[in-house]
Amino acid sequence: MDTLGVGLIGTGYMGKCHALAWNAVASVFGDVARPRLALLCDAKEPEARARELGFVRATQDWRELVKDPRVDIVSIATPNHFHADMAIAALQNGKHVWCEKPMATALADAGRMRDAARASGKLAVLGYNYIQNPVMRLMRKLIAEDAIGAVTHVRVEMDEDFMADASAPFSLRNERSSGYGAADDFMVHELSLIWSLVGPVSRVSGDMAKPYADRTLPSGARRAVETFDIANAFLRLKNGASGVMIANRAAWGRKGRIAVQIFGAQGSLVFDQERMNEVEMFTSDGDPATRGFRRILAAPLHPPYGKFIPAPGHSLGFNDLKVIECREILGRLRGEQTLLIDFETGYEIDRTVHAIAESHASGGWIDLS
Amino acid sequence: MDTLGVGLIGTGYMGKCHALAWNAVASVFGDVARPRLALLCDAKEPEARARELGFVRATQDWRELVKDPRVDIVSIATPNHFHADMAIAALQNGKHVWCEKPMATALADAGRMRDAARASGKLAVLGYNYIQNPVMRLMRKLIAEDAIGAVTHVRVEMDEDFMADASAPFSLRNERSSGYGAADDFMVHELSLIWSLVGPVSRVSGDMAKPYADRTLPSGARRAVETFDIANAFLRLKNGASGVMIANRAAWGRKGRIAVQIFGAQGSLVFDQERMNEVEMFTSDGDPATRGFRRILAAPLHPPYGKFIPAPGHSLGFNDLKVIECREILGRLRGEQTLLIDFETGYEIDRTVHAIAESHASGGWIDLS
Amino acid sequence: MDTLGVGLIGTGYMGKCHALAWNAVASVFGDVARPRLALLCDAKEPEARARELGFVRATQDWRELVKDPRVDIVSIATPNHFHADMAIAALQNGKHVWCEKPMATALADAGRMRDAARASGKLAVLGYNYIQNPVMRLMRKLIAEDAIGAVTHVRVEMDEDFMADASAPFSLRNERSSGYGAADDFMVHELSLIWSLVGPVSRVSGDMAKPYADRTLPSGARRAVETFDIANAFLRLKNGASGVMIANRAAWGRKGRIAVQIFGAQGSLVFDQERMNEVEMFTSDGDPATRGFRRILAAPLHPPYGKFIPAPGHSLGFNDLKVIECREILGRLRGEQTLLIDFETGYEIDRTVHAIAESHASGGWIDLS
Amino acid sequence: MDTLGVGLIGTGYMGKCHALAWNAVASVFGDVARPRLALLCDAKEPEARARELGFVRATQDWRELVKDPRVDIVSIATPNHFHADMAIAALQNGKHVWCEKPMATALADAGRMRDAARASGKLAVLGYNYIQNPVMRLMRKLIAEDAIGAVTHVRVEMDEDFMADASAPFSLRNERSSGYGAADDFMVHELSLIWSLVGPVSRVSGDMAKPYADRTLPSGARRAVETFDIANAFLRLKNGASGVMIANRAAWGRKGRIAVQIFGAQGSLVFDQERMNEVEMFTSDGDPATRGFRRILAAPLHPPYGKFIPAPGHSLGFNDLKVIECREILGRLRGEQTLLIDFETGYEIDRTVHAIAESHASGGWIDLS
Repeated sequence: MDTLGVGLIGTGYMGKCHALAWNAVASVFGDVARPRLALLCDAKEPEARARELGFVRATQDWRELVKDPRVDIVSIATPNHFHADMAIAALQNGKHVWCEKPMATALADAGRMRDAARASGKLAVLGYNYIQNPVMRLMRKLIAEDAIGAVTHVRVEMDEDFMADASAPFSLRNERSSGYGAADDFMVHELSLIWSLVGPVSRVSGDMAKPYADRTLPSGARRAVETFDIANAFLRLKNGASGVMIANRAAWGRKGRIAVQIFGAQGSLVFDQERMNEVEMFTSDGDPATRGFRRILAAPLHPPYGKFIPAPGHSLGFNDLKVIECREILGRLRGEQTLLIDFETGYEIDRTVHAIAESHASGGWIDLS
Repeated sequence: MDTLGVGLIGTGYMGKCHALAWNAVASVFGDVARPRLALLCDAKEPEARARELGFVRATQDWRELVKDPRVDIVSIATPNHFHADMAIAALQNGKHVWCEKPMATALADAGRMRDAARASGKLAVLGYNYIQNPVMRLMRKLIAEDAIGAVTHVRVEMDEDFMADASAPFSLRNERSSGYGAADDFMVHELSLIWSLVGPVSRVSGDMAKPYADRTLPSGARRAVETFDIANAFLRLKNGASGVMIANRAAWGRKGRIAVQIFGAQGSLVFDQERMNEVEMFTSDGDPATRGFRRILAAPLHPPYGKFIPAPGHSLGFNDLKVIECREILGRLRGEQTLLIDFETGYEIDRTVHAIAESHASGGWIDLS
Repeated sequence: MDTLGVGLIGTGYMGKCHALAWNAVASVFGDVARPRLALLCDAKEPEARARELGFVRATQDWRELVKDPRVDIVSIATPNHFHADMAIAALQNGKHVWCEKPMATALADAGRMRDAARASGKLAVLGYNYIQNPVMRLMRKLIAEDAIGAVTHVRVEMDEDFMADASAPFSLRNERSSGYGAADDFMVHELSLIWSLVGPVSRVSGDMAKPYADRTLPSGARRAVETFDIANAFLRLKNGASGVMIANRAAWGRKGRIAVQIFGAQGSLVFDQERMNEVEMFTSDGDPATRGFRRILAAPLHPPYGKFIPAPGHSLGFNDLKVIECREILGRLRGEQTLLIDFETGYEIDRTVHAIAESHASGGWIDLS
Repeated sequence: MDTLGVGLIGTGYMGKCHALAWNAVASVFGDVARPRLALLCDAKEPEARARELGFVRATQDWRELVKDPRVDIVSIATPNHFHADMAIAALQNGKHVWCEKPMATALADAGRMRDAARASGKLAVLGYNYIQNPVMRLMRKLIAEDAIGAVTHVRVEMDEDFMADASAPFSLRNERSSGYGAADDFMVHELSLIWSLVGPVSRVSGDMAKPYADRTLPSGARRAVETFDIANAFLRLKNGASGVMIANRAAWGRKGRIAVQIFGAQGSLVFDQERMNEVEMFTSDGDPATRGFRRILAAPLHPPYGKFIPAPGHSLGFNDLKVIECREILGRLRGEQTLLIDFETGYEIDRTVHAIAESHASGGWIDLS
C-alpha cells in the first residue's frame, strides 16, 4: 500500500480542520498521493462523524486507533490533557504523529512526548499552523535574506475576547488546573511565530494579570479566578534581539488578532492575523521622500499560495493553513526539507511559557539556555 | 443511487476550485451526503487530473460526460466560449448545470442557455461565488432588515492589474472577439453583487476607455487594441437608487479589489474583496459623538462561517466561497430556499453588460425594462 | 508701506480660516513680511470680531473695505452669491483678491469675475486649499516626474453626510436657487484636484440624483426637493486619460472624504482627505513578490510641511492648508512661481460643473474645448 | 495691563510651536484676550526671530527675560538641561511657567522645579500636548463615563525611526549624559497619556535594550553606545489595571506612532497618533453580529475641535494641539478647571521613568507609592 493511512482522534474545532486538510491536500497540491482516511475516533457517534468527514471506518476507542495497522499517521485533536498519552502510544506503536498545540498541559508531559518521539524515530509534529501562512513564509524568507537587516526588536501581541465578559460565570478556564491562562493559550502561538521567523528565545521575564478577580458560581457566590487572562513577557532572542510578547484573552473586540512587528537594521515587517493575507514591509532604501510601509497582498509569488488560487489578492483562509501544514508533513515523510514545529521545538516553546509563568512568580529574568 | 453524481469539465483555475468544493462540501457542512466525483473531463491527461482531484473516472470528450448516466450535475469550468454548447447539451440530457461566469460571450448564447434551462426544468446556476461570502450575506441581511434604511446610492469598483503592463505584447484579450474587456470581465461580478444586495438594475449609461491604444506584435509592429480595459457605468436600480459601477483591469497594484459602498437613508455599508472577511457599517443612531464606521469581522454569527471555523475573526478564503455555493446547490436540489444566481438572472446580468457597451457607443441612457 | 494690507470680508467658517492664515503665515514661513490685518468687515459686531481675529479696524460696509487705501488684498469669505460683486469691486479698486470657492453661483457671474481680473492686472485667486496639502503636492510632483508613468485613469469621490438625514426639514439647500447640489458643492473641489494633479478636463457626461424626493415643510406638508445631493460624471482629460468623478452629500458616515485614485502606466497613487497626511503609492518596479501600495506619511521632505513641523509623521491640519495657500499668494505677489487656482482656471472649473449638469439634462457627452 | 505678557525662550522645534500657539489662541477661541508677545530670547539673531514670530522685543539673555516686568508667563523651549534653571528662575521672579517636556534630565532637577513651583504659587505646567487632542479628550471622557467599563489593561507603544540608521555616526544621543534613551525621550509622553486617560502608575518593571552596540566615531573607530534606543515596561496602575509600555526610537518606518490600546470590562479604545484625528471604539452591547471597532473621526462634537473647524472629519494638526494647551493655560489663569500636566504630575512622570530604568538594572518590580 503506497498511500498514507490516516487515523484521526477528535472531531471538534481542530479535528474537523485536520479532516478537511487530509481531504483536500492531494487535490490542492497535485504532487502528493491522496491519503487514505482510514479510521476516525470520536467519543460520540463516530460512524456518523466518519461518514461526514470522509473516513472509511470509525471507533470510540483511541487505543484501538493507535494500533491499527491501516493507520500510518495519527492526527490528535482532542482536549489538551489527552495529548501526551495518545501521542506517546501512537509513537510507541510506530505511527507518525500530528498533534494539536499546546503540546501538553504539564511540562513533564511535553518532555515525555519529546522523549517518545526521539525513541521512535517517527515524525512527531505540532499543529502550529499560523507559521504555514504564505505571507508568514514570505516574512521568514525576507528576514532570512536580510531584506530588513539584522533583527533588532520583535513585538507580538495576541488578543481575543472570549474571556472578556466580566459577567460570564466561573468556568473551567478560570481554574488553575486548566493552565496559566493566556500564557499557555496564546503565547505558544506567539512563540511558534518568533521561532519560525527569527529564531529561539534565550531569556524571559514574565508578568501575568487578572482583569477580573472573581466570577459568579451557580450558587450566586463569587469564586476567585485562578488563571491569568493577561500575560506579558520581555524577551531576549538568541540572535541578540530584544522582544516583547503580550497575550490577552479578555480584549474586547479582538477576535483573532496576532499582531507581529519585527524591526531590523534596514527595515521593518508588520503583520496582523486578522488580515492574514497581507504583510506590511518598510525598507530604508530608495528615495526618502517616498518611503513607507507597503502592503503586500498574498499572491502566487508567495508559495504555496498559487497551489490554491492562481490569481493574486484573492485570499486564503484559516483552514487553508492546515492544508499547507498537511503538505509539509507529507513532504517531510518523503524526505523534503519542510517547515514544521516538531516535538523538540515544541518542548522548547512549552518550556519558555513555563519560564514566563515562573518569572511572574519570582519577579526576575530566567535564562533558558 | 442516493448521492449526487458529479461531472466536471475543465480543471484550470475554476475547475480546480469546483473540484475542491465538491470534495469538501460534505465534510464542511455535515448535513449533506458526500457527492460522488463520477467523471472528469479535461483535454490533457484527464486520468492524471482525475486522480489528483479525486474523480473516479476520466474522459477527454465532454459530449460523453454530459450524457453519462452516472452524472447528475455538470460543473462547467472551461473557456467562456464553450459554456453555451456544454450547458445546453447537459441540460438537454437531463443534467443539472453549474456553470462558471460569465455565462457566454455572446448575448444570444446566454439567451439560448436560459431557454434550455427553462425547457429542461433542471437546476442551472452560475458560479457567482462572491455573493456567497458570509460577510456579503450579512450585508444582504442588514439591507433586507432595513438596518441602513432604504438604499439611496450604490457604488462598486472592481480593479485588478493583469492588463496594466503597457509593455506586455498584444494578446487575445486585446481582440474584440474576446469580449468588450473590463465590462464583461468584471461588471458581471459587480452586477451579481448589486443584484444580490439591492436588486435589479433598470437603466444604464456606459463609458469604456482604453488606457493603452496599441500593443506590440511579435513582429515588432504595433497593433491597435480593440478591447476596453476600463469600463464605467451610471445606474438606476429598480428600487430607485442611483449607482455608479467602475471596472479597471489595468489598475496597477489592485489585485482583487471589489470595493462596494452602499448608502442608505439611515446608514452605510462598505466592503472590499481584498479584505473579504470584513465589512464596515455606519448607522446614524446612538450618540452622535461616538458614531463611526465599525469594522465587523466575519464570525460564526454570520452563517455559514461557523461551518468552517467555530471561532470569529479567523478568516475564510476565496476557495471557501465555492464550497458555500456548492452547498447552496445541494440545498436547492432538496428543496431549500437558497441564494444562487440562476440562468434567468444570469441572462439579465449579461443583458445589462451588453447595454452598457451599447450605451458607450450610442452615448445615452438605455432602459432595461 | 512695505507690508501687505489685508481686508477680510466675512468671519464665518472660511473667514476665520483666512484670518488664522493671515495671522500665522509670517511666523510659519519666516521668509515673508508679516501682513498688516488692516480692516475687517462683518455684518454683525465687526469690532468684536476684529478684536478676536487680530484686525486693527472694522466696518459693516464691504464697499468701504474694497476702497480702503490701507487694504492691498481682499479676502472674500461671504456667502457665495456675494462673491461676484465683491470681487469685481475689489479688482476695480485695484485690490488683489483671494476669494473662497465656489467662484459664483451663476456661470455668467464667474465670467464677469474672470473678465474683471483680466482687466485689472491684479492677482485674483480662489481658495481651493486642498491642492496645497504637502501630500497633494507630493502626488503632483510624482506625476510630473513620471513616477507612475502616463496617467491613464483618474477616480475622485467626495462624500459627506450633512444632507443624509432624510427626516431633516426642507431647507435652502434643497432649492434650485442654491445651485445644483453636490455638483457645485463638491465637484469644484474634485476638479481643482484633478486640474492640479493631472490637468484640464476636455469632455464630460453627467448624472445627478436625488436620494430623497421630498422633505417636510414647517406646515407639515412635503415639498419636492429641487437639488441633487448626488452627482456623478464620466470624464476625458486633455491628456487622454479617462476619469470618473462622484459626489454625494448624503453619504452617511463620510465626513470629509475626498478619495483620489490615480492610475498610471507604471503605478498608482491613492489619497483620502479624511487621512490627509498620507498618500499610498504603488510602483511596478522592484521584486514583484514584495510590491504593494506603500503608505507615505507627510514629512519635512514634502515641502512646505517642514515649515510647520520639523519631524515627520506629526500631521498638518486642515487650517494649515490655508496658511500654505496664503504663502503661495504672498510669493506670487513677489514674483515667485507658485501653485494657485486663479480666476481663469476657476472659471474653467465652474464651466465644467455647469456642463456636467447640462449633460445630466440632455443625456450625452459635452465637449469643453 | 489686562492682557498676558509672554516671554519665549528658544525658537527651535517647540519654541516656534509655542510662538504659533500664542499668536493663534485668541483668534481660534475667541473667548480669551490676545496675549502680548512681549519678549523673545534666542541665542542667535533674536531680533530677526522676534520679527518672524511676532514678538515686539528680543534678547539673548534669558535671565533678563525671566525678570522682565512686561512678561507674565515664560514659555521655555530650550534644550532639556536648561529647563530647571530657567523654570526655577522664572518662578522665583513671580512668572508663570510653561515648560516643554521632559521636565529635566536629572530627577533631582525635576524635584527642584516642583519645589519652586510649590513655593511660588504660580502656574507651572509642562508641554505634554498629546493629551490635548480632542480625540484624546474624547477617550478620556468615555473612560470617565464608563463607556468601556472599568479599565483592565493598557498598552502604549511609541515608535519613531530617528535612531534606526545603524550606519549613522556616534552622537550625543548615544551618550549616557543625554539620558537613558527611549525611556526619557518617549515614555514621558506615554505616561502623560496614561495619566490623563486612566490615572497614575503604582508599580513598574523595566527592560531596556540597545539595537546597535556601537557606532562609528569620526576617527573611524567604533564607540560603544551608552543609551538604550528601546525601552519596555510592565505596569500596574493605581486602579488595578495592568499595562505594558514600549518605546523604540530605532523602529524603521515609524514616524510619530503612539499606539494606545485600552481594554475595559465593557469595551476597548484604540488610537494611533499617526492618525491623530481618529479613535476606534468597541463596545460589547447591541447585536453581537454587528459589533466591531468603530472609527470615530474628530468633529465639532469633540471640544474644542469646533473652535478650529466647524465641519467634522476635516483634521486638526499637531500644531493645533499646542493652541489648545495654550487655551488651557489661559483658562486656568482665570480660574477654569482645565486639563494640564503641572510640575507635580510632571515630577511623578519623571520619577516613574527613572524607576523603569532602575528596574532594568536591578531586574525586579519597583513600587512607586
